[in-house]
Amino acid sequence: MNKYEIAVIPGDGIGNEVVPEAMRVLEAAAEIHGGLSLQWSQFSWNCEYYLKHGQMMPDDGIDTLRSFNQIFLGAVGMPGLVPDHISLWGLLIKIRRGFQQSINVRPAKLLRGLESPLKNPKDFDLIVVRENSEGEYSEVGGRIHQGSDQIAIQNAVFTRKSTERAMRYAFDLAAERRGHVTSATKSNGISHSMPFWDEVFKEVAVDYPEMNTTSTHIDALAAFFVMKPHIFDVIVASNLFGDILTDLGGAIMGSIGIAPAANLNIERKYPSMFEPVHGSAPDIMGQGVANPIGQIWTGKMMLDFMGYRELGELILGAIEDTLQAGVRTPDLGGRAKMMEVTDTIIANLKKRA
Amino acid sequence: MNKYEIAVIPGDGIGNEVVPEAMRVLEAAAEIHGGLSLQWSQFSWNCEYYLKHGQMMPDDGIDTLRSFNQIFLGAVGMPGLVPDHISLWGLLIKIRRGFQQSINVRPAKLLRGLESPLKNPKDFDLIVVRENSEGEYSEVGGRIHQGSDQIAIQNAVFTRKSTERAMRYAFDLAAERRGHVTSATKSNGISHSMPFWDEVFKEVAVDYPEMNTTSTHIDALAAFFVMKPHIFDVIVASNLFGDILTDLGGAIMGSIGIAPAANLNIERKYPSMFEPVHGSAPDIMGQGVANPIGQIWTGKMMLDFMGYRELGELILGAIEDTLQAGVRTPDLGGRAKMMEVTDTIIANLKKRA
Ligand SMILES: CC(C)[C@H](C(=O)O)[C@@H](O)C(=O)O
Ligand SMILES: CC(C)[C@H](C(=O)O)[C@@H](O)C(=O)O
Repeated sequence: MNKYEIAVIPGDGIGNEVVPEAMRVLEAAAEIHGGLSLQWSQFSWNCEYYLKHGQMMPDDGIDTLRSFNQIFLGAVGMPGLVPDHISLWGLLIKIRRGFQQSINVRPAKLLRGLESPLKNPKDFDLIVVRENSEGEYSEVGGRIHQGSDQIAIQNAVFTRKSTERAMRYAFDLAAERRGHVTSATKSNGISHSMPFWDEVFKEVAVDYPEMNTTSTHIDALAAFFVMKPHIFDVIVASNLFGDILTDLGGAIMGSIGIAPAANLNIERKYPSMFEPVHGSAPDIMGQGVANPIGQIWTGKMMLDFMGYRELGELILGAIEDTLQAGVRTPDLGGRAKMMEVTDTIIANLKKRA
Repeated sequence: MNKYEIAVIPGDGIGNEVVPEAMRVLEAAAEIHGGLSLQWSQFSWNCEYYLKHGQMMPDDGIDTLRSFNQIFLGAVGMPGLVPDHISLWGLLIKIRRGFQQSINVRPAKLLRGLESPLKNPKDFDLIVVRENSEGEYSEVGGRIHQGSDQIAIQNAVFTRKSTERAMRYAFDLAAERRGHVTSATKSNGISHSMPFWDEVFKEVAVDYPEMNTTSTHIDALAAFFVMKPHIFDVIVASNLFGDILTDLGGAIMGSIGIAPAANLNIERKYPSMFEPVHGSAPDIMGQGVANPIGQIWTGKMMLDFMGYRELGELILGAIEDTLQAGVRTPDLGGRAKMMEVTDTIIANLKKRA
């Protein structure tokens, strides 16, 4: 029996609703497997915690998490209660950086049984590899002067090491897939970071002569996500560009509520963190209508990363069976409640086992 | 008779094809009006010019343009021949900055007779007001170290003056429309520029108590362009975010080939520049299939800015009549050639006159 210690941080809003659902599915999967045991330890670090303690997690929060195999996170943020930059930099981004989760992997594909908002989408199946540790998301910068003279300067920092790591990961991934890597750039408008990004991409590509490569400006790339997402295989993008593209990926699939994500420490020195693309969605909290699929698919990515890819495939199959049977939450145009969706996924999982 | 001196820069690729088409339409509009005379002076500044002279325009290029009322531009860039950052910073961005064209206005709306790639789009009609002079598009920054230690730093610079100017323009525009301004932010991930952006937005909004305001992170905003573009009226965005959103705007309309843009010197001290969102598209050059509508609609925006709004409305109506009659270029799923589209627009314009 392989035991895994999983730290669970449901976080805010619907994170608290969808995380237990995903855990039910993962438990069912572990049971099917027979040789896999998931040990869950829950941490209530969120905006409420912040309002009581003045910080999003205790001082030794990162140390506490260090001993776990993986971290399973719901969503962070309650913009009305705590400013976003406090809640996110105090928890989500702190963990991403504390554990050098420098790669964020986010797939988007046309699921069986799901209505894309696109009219006639060809079958698409893409993965965005997002640099997750630096770039435009930076605390470097500041302000000068007051009032009408005020200036804010924001430094985006791109290191060779992190840029190259994201790109190599993208090429390795493409080698297992359809062999095509698209680099998201904007070197026509952004004069330093993006030409650097392009140079590194060209250099790294030399080591992968059998791969096809394309460089596309982020504005056109975003438009192509709408017009012809089927042309993409693996896309490598900076932190900000990856962020934007993956929400778009969720949108063209049919709902942000579906899109999964993995924050990977690819060196496996520290725990990785698995959290869906969607946020805490306080507006639909407490109604039992949150879409659990993003969190469940995220759980599948956790299993993949732990080496249980077949089990992961079963889960994705069960998700598609469920969608195809019309059991869908309102964000997908359905009338099912969250728990009904989960129950059906588990039933379908057992059928597939 | 009101005479206007227009500097015409067809630029690269299909710019050379669609600009003459748009001029034909504008001439037809001027004729209908009777009291308006457009004097065109053409400048062949483009990548070919660069290959001959080592610069995109002559040293006194900006001075030469200064005396014109407006600038009508096609597209700039031939990535195979001249690196984008050279061609663009040497011409397009040089003119934008040289003439303090600090506001870039780009509408997106569901046109009559046009097939959106969205499945069931509700009627949308939005305008992106893009800060056009600073922000993420900056030459400030540089590199340090070599090889695997190399670091590139990119400074995004946000001044109170330019930020506020874009926002006030957006509010003034919304006041003439449906009274709703959405601010594109990313203050949850970007620590200095975007919280500053949010603060200025809140302060400016105080002066427009009758307007509705929303702040939305760029990732979610991009997704909403796909999922529910009808919720937007005016969106105010930084240079980069505006760039991305407006390509998306083109995509949801049906083609980037349609989207128009205006680079405005709102103080009217210098000429403004009118250029469509699409690029030089070398891949379809010379086939006569370029979509002239982006350039023609851009011409309409030029007339609007010069005070001929009724004439502008006639042109947009004639464009819609043409689309509805099925006279469309291949990018819109049609089989018409560029010139046939223009001819039909002119015929429809005359019918409407
Ligand atoms: C060509 C490029 C520099 C330009 C920009 O990003 O401003 C273009 O994409 C646009 O939107 O006008
Ligand atoms: C909440 C926010 C800081 C975060 C990000 O931008 O990284 C989110 O949008 C995401 O994509 O995980």
